Amino acid sequence: MKQRIYINDVAVRDGFQIEKNIISTETKIALIDALSETGVAKIETTSFVHPKLVPNMADAVEVLANIKRAADVTYSVLVPNRKGMERAVATHQSDGRIDEINVVVSASETHNRANVNRTCDESFADFAIMVKMAKSAGIRINGSISTSFGCPFEGYVPEDRVLGFARRFADLGFDGVSLADTTGMANPAQVERLSAAAVRQFSNIELTLHFHNTRGMGLANVIAGIRAGIVHYDGSLAGLGGCPFAPGATGNICTEDMVNMLEDMDYDTGVDLDRLLAAAVKMPAIVGHDVTGQVMRAGKTMHLHAVPGKLYTQ
Amino acid sequence: MKQRIYINDVAVRDGFQIEKNIISTETKIALIDALSETGVAKIETTSFVHPKLVPNMADAVEVLANIKRAADVTYSVLVPNRKGMERAVATHQSDGRIDEINVVVSASETHNRANVNRTCDESFADFAIMVKMAKSAGIRINGSISTSFGCPFEGYVPEDRVLGFARRFADLGFDGVSLADTTGMANPAQVERLSAAAVRQFSNIELTLHFHNTRGMGLANVIAGIRAGIVHYDGSLAGLGGCPFAPGATGNICTEDMVNMLEDMDYDTGVDLDRLLAAAVKMPAIVGHDVTGQVMRAGKTMHLHAVPGKLYTQ
Repeated sequence: MKQRIYINDVAVRDGFQIEKNIISTETKIALIDALSETGVAKIETTSFVHPKLVPNMADAVEVLANIKRAADVTYSVLVPNRKGMERAVATHQSDGRIDEINVVVSASETHNRANVNRTCDESFADFAIMVKMAKSAGIRINGSISTSFGCPFEGYVPEDRVLGFARRFADLGFDGVSLADTTGMANPAQVERLSAAAVRQFSNIELTLHFHNTRGMGLANVIAGIRAGIVHYDGSLAGLGGCPFAPGATGNICTEDMVNMLEDMDYDTGVDLDRLLAAAVKMPAIVGHDVTGQVMRAGKTMHLHAVPGKLYTQ
Repeated sequence: MKQRIYINDVAVRDGFQIEKNIISTETKIALIDALSETGVAKIETTSFVHPKLVPNMADAVEVLANIKRAADVTYSVLVPNRKGMERAVATHQSDGRIDEINVVVSASETHNRANVNRTCDESFADFAIMVKMAKSAGIRINGSISTSFGCPFEGYVPEDRVLGFARRFADLGFDGVSLADTTGMANPAQVERLSAAAVRQFSNIELTLHFHNTRGMGLANVIAGIRAGIVHYDGSLAGLGGCPFAPGATGNICTEDMVNMLEDMDYDTGVDLDRLLAAAVKMPAIVGHDVTGQVMRAGKTMHLHAVPGKLYTQ
């Protein structure tokens, strides 16, 4: 019996949000629909952030109203604050169902202020209200802890502080908690240690790991998380996404590279890698630049080659 | 007490051999000298391959005669056949000392024929003679097994066949054996399994792992090898090197990315990462194209950033 690993693709939200070119609503819908047919467990579809801040998320309502939902896929949205939560709940109740809402706080005060212009306590005060709004609407809610494995301003964040934030989410009644390595500072030893502590403390919560491949350790960190017992992983199709503090650096871990590795290792991702690759190869044309996915260049591990002709002529 | 991991940089040989532009002898010498001052344990300096086949290795004798040797660094050369061994031994006895010779056979018959145009048995028949030549000259000798984790023509190679080849090297009196993932097909589960078997069977031999990052698993495979007890790793400065069957794919694992990860994990690599990065950033100008190293773009993990100014103005 293979171990199941659950894949959450965040490209349409976490990837597109930093793209300078506006991606058309039709393209987003087509991409989400293609992802729905690959077998991924979850898709982060859009964000209810202010359209002036993130122009590529201005079509959140239209995207949700027009995607084709697969029965076994969870469709999630990012919600940055109470205003966004009001819009998300209204959308859920009219045009487009939302299965799960994702909110974000940073483990480091400095990063939280940089990201959402408030203290961490202020963020949690909002979450206490937002969780009730989501639950009343019948929507699952997940709390993401950014910079869980390091803050680009402060350095490593004490593990007790990260676990304390997870505890606050759990005590508020959240369904899931994501530990996010926002700028790619995590290493496998740290991931295994913190993940194991989280698994011990939060047996009733869905734990997800969110990695970036900024310094090449992304897939190593996935293995470390699995060793600690975490089975939910965020990835971004074609490796979209990035880090504003490292121009030219690679972004989120690439979903299809992760699936290729996990399938090679005999895990059950539930994902049809060929379909996933077929969606991924369209990404450079969609975003208008090269992407960092490696399997789309090299082919799946078991994509064998013909022996070069010259061999037997010698 | 930190665990020591030994780093062997192969960029000047494995990286430069596939570069189309001719790299000047002075540049190679300067690069090897810079690597000598970083604290790496071993440097693969050149190859005694026929200059018509690999023009960038035509200056092997001159390179060896002019590098500054650090006392604690092993300087190795690749030798493809008996003819190359004659040249290497002659060089060792005149202009430039050689600490170690590296020979190569592929685990798969098809790949060995493609690579050196002979059967694996024919390769080992040569090795039986070459090991005596090296030993008589007082040079250490290492046997590399290409495609140990998969052949791009045949697929996975039976582990017993790979271990059998390692046994043949050991029985011939070789000092070390490298298991090489020539085209980036290895996954961490496979690496840990095969490495553990090798460690059990070859306690008197220096075992080295050689990975490519073709499908993003390179650093994950290093962790898997360490878990199995292997402490010697090949890397290529700036991630130079590549795979002829995957155009555009990334090549060897990047030495400075590996060192950054291992130092983050509290291993002792003996390497000064700042010096290594200072050498790596020169590589794009040397080879005339972009390279795949990620830490040179993103900065070391603990390279912190100033908080963006706009923050406190809001």
